[in-house]
Amino acid sequence: MGVEETDPLAQLSLPPGFRFYPTDEELLVQYLCRKVAGQQFSLQIIGEIDLYKFDPWVLPNKALFGEKEWYFFSPRDRKYPNGSRPNRVAGSGYWKATGTDKIITSEGRKAGIKKALVFYVGKAPKGTKTNWIMHEYRLLESSRKNGSSRLDDWVLCRIYKKNSGAQKPISSVSTKEHSSNGSSSSSSSHLDDVWTVDGDG
Amino acid sequence: MGVEETDPLAQLSLPPGFRFYPTDEELLVQYLCRKVAGQQFSLQIIGEIDLYKFDPWVLPNKALFGEKEWYFFSPRDRKYPNGSRPNRVAGSGYWKATGTDKIITSEGRKAGIKKALVFYVGKAPKGTKTNWIMHEYRLLESSRKNGSSRLDDWVLCRIYKKNSGAQKPISSVSTKEHSSNGSSSSSSSHLDDVWTVDGDG
Repeated sequence: MGVEETDPLAQLSLPPGFRFYPTDEELLVQYLCRKVAGQQFSLQIIGEIDLYKFDPWVLPNKALFGEKEWYFFSPRDRKYPNGSRPNRVAGSGYWKATGTDKIITSEGRKAGIKKALVFYVGKAPKGTKTNWIMHEYRLLESSRKNGSSRLDDWVLCRIYKKNSGAQKPISSVSTKEHSSNGSSSSSSSHLDDVWTVDGDG
Repeated sequence: MGVEETDPLAQLSLPPGFRFYPTDEELLVQYLCRKVAGQQFSLQIIGEIDLYKFDPWVLPNKALFGEKEWYFFSPRDRKYPNGSRPNRVAGSGYWKATGTDKIITSEGRKAGIKKALVFYVGKAPKGTKTNWIMHEYRLLESSRKNGSSRLDDWVLCRIYKKNSGAQKPISSVSTKEHSSNGSSSSSSSHLDDVWTVDGDG
């Protein structure tokens, strides 16, 4: 995974079991807002890349760190500001929105949007679906316009490969209890937040 | 959560989004094995408590840190070494095993067992089920006997409250993609490891 010297985790000297497992709110407020506002990070955790230049499977090697998911700042695409296009060409295929967008709030106010996309190999609309997923976090227009200085345009993306072939728990009781753990015991809000229907823009 | 000075996370000065999100293997090998072998930790992450003296809802305040799940070393109960009893009295109720035990491996060898339990208020078998869950990690007898010095008897427990009332994603596509994220993108093996049927002992 990249060059050892640039691995921010090596600099942190984390005890066993500590890892980057951010909530949606942390990604938006602590990382994307700061990035867009031009603030410097004392330790660079999330690198910059133009995600749409690459197939997703080459991205892990381009991340600063990561085990099963990788984070990037990517330039915000300005070509389709209204977000109405159904897919986005990238590498040998395209990203296609899936599910419903999620409004991310912070201190009771809307802070941004989380969108899920799936990578398809080939040309739309006849591409072949893969297990590569992107979660794209972007700030709301309103929050972006609030800054007094010029704002850069960035989105924050999480890339991971879905583990579709994973063996499932055998007992239904196990499934229930442990799925619940996955959704409630972790600090991340990957799973257990409220999803609001907000179009597929 | 507890007294600020004892919070090990404050000492770590973690960047935003970093948290304790250990895999089963890390809990067994990096924490429980070391504890049982009497090794010192440079930073105490997991405190000691006799879990069966308390109701689960008082445990968060007794942990060294934690947001939605809390970790403890607890003395291994010697009363029923064969593990055949159906419940364990604790506080105002009892813990009852649920699902199937999971064998945790490390470097291809069996290292320990992960057991899930649910807390019931009242007297067995007529107690009322709660949403409080325990994952108990214990070493295999064989690995415990391998040490040359005297071994202390400890188990490592994760306590959390299941979020049964959480709202679910509206779209089935969302459910699918994001549940998959929960099970595959995180580094933890809470969800996506293979569960082996090994009785409820």
